[in-house]
Amino acid sequence: MTGIVHLVGAGPGAADLLTIRAARLLAEADVVLHDALVDPSVLALAANAKLYNVGKRAGRPSTDQRFICRLLVRVGQRHKIVVRLKGGDPSLFGRAAEELNACRTAGIPVSIVPGVSAGFAAAAALGVSLTLRGVSRSVTFVTPAIAQGGESDDAWAHAAAAAETAVIYMGATQAERVRRELIARGVPADRPIALVESASSANEVTVRGSLSELPELAARLGDGPALIVVGEAVAEARAIVDAAAAA
Amino acid sequence: MTGIVHLVGAGPGAADLLTIRAARLLAEADVVLHDALVDPSVLALAANAKLYNVGKRAGRPSTDQRFICRLLVRVGQRHKIVVRLKGGDPSLFGRAAEELNACRTAGIPVSIVPGVSAGFAAAAALGVSLTLRGVSRSVTFVTPAIAQGGESDDAWAHAAAAAETAVIYMGATQAERVRRELIARGVPADRPIALVESASSANEVTVRGSLSELPELAARLGDGPALIVVGEAVAEARAIVDAAAAA
Repeated sequence: MTGIVHLVGAGPGAADLLTIRAARLLAEADVVLHDALVDPSVLALAANAKLYNVGKRAGRPSTDQRFICRLLVRVGQRHKIVVRLKGGDPSLFGRAAEELNACRTAGIPVSIVPGVSAGFAAAAALGVSLTLRGVSRSVTFVTPAIAQGGESDDAWAHAAAAAETAVIYMGATQAERVRRELIARGVPADRPIALVESASSANEVTVRGSLSELPELAARLGDGPALIVVGEAVAEARAIVDAAAAA
Repeated sequence: MTGIVHLVGAGPGAADLLTIRAARLLAEADVVLHDALVDPSVLALAANAKLYNVGKRAGRPSTDQRFICRLLVRVGQRHKIVVRLKGGDPSLFGRAAEELNACRTAGIPVSIVPGVSAGFAAAAALGVSLTLRGVSRSVTFVTPAIAQGGESDDAWAHAAAAAETAVIYMGATQAERVRRELIARGVPADRPIALVESASSANEVTVRGSLSELPELAARLGDGPALIVVGEAVAEARAIVDAAAAA
């Protein structure tokens, strides 16, 4: 018996930012493999499922991803409905390609259920729009995390510097490097930035300043996952909107 | 009496890709202002609300946005819970800044409820990840729509060309221009692309090819909203993942 594997976005953190489809699939699931930071009340929706916490342990990413793929295939071959619950949206920094590939190679049908990525929860926390008519019509989501393999080390910085608004995932712990790489690519040191830790959760923290202050701002955050948002869009929008309306 | 205005993401189209919070706020709402393309079953959740369809009419964007802002303030001053329901996520190409500004200027509390943007539903429809470890760690969301005002006309193309994966909103009707601008900025003509029309809805259509074929691919779509996804990530992921694993 082969079932179906659903790669499901758990959203940014708050339990009620799960989609209705995700909640239904959790309730129907026989097995759930979930990331480390999923809210307990979300996992409680999977009342009939065997749960596996496959949250990555720091320092062993490759081994763990292969383990997750093997486990996903094994449970997909033995159970009807398998949910792989991933923080945010599965297709953004979620290693979905490896898991899709493992399932397809094993002949297991696999679907993706999109979710709310943390960058959007960060914008909501800040009370700003990532795009501004007349100011920003491009938003880039990047991560500067260092991976093994032949990856170009500065493609992320090039993409972030080219966008009007940049949302940087997993970058707050590398604040000095992020500041240096962006300024080296021509991003003004006084460009407005904001950092959001644990966006949408009860522990949410926001801090604001300019790119030049990034390391100091990052030092004010705790241990939760944090995003950096860079661009005029995070400044107080009123003046910008008023100016655009008057133009 | 002043209420609260919630700018709420309705998600990409499918009714069950609404968040749980959005569904609850609709059920509690006294007034709902909604975009044109929201599913009737989503609007039915707002059982006790007066509904206003404020979907934009082509050709009169500025007038209509001002009208929406005025209406939002008026109902926010007279009702307890107002939902401004917007396709996708409010902070991405949603004119949220104008509406946030209008509410704040009038002293009306306003919140943002993030939603699933269409780009993520497009990735789900294609069965791909927008990021690929070892290949793509930057995703840019842009729109080439022409606006009045002092907007730089090629900033969108610059940002899209600089990203490893680009998701282009509202661009399928300008396929010739999108192809020309991207190739002029060095994007290879044979880069894989996919177009997704009405992502997540019952009328969803996907077509695939290369950047050089963009106008021909766009011509195969109907009248629904369509996204263009550009990058190696939309190619069959198997070979890429295998190659990365072997490296």
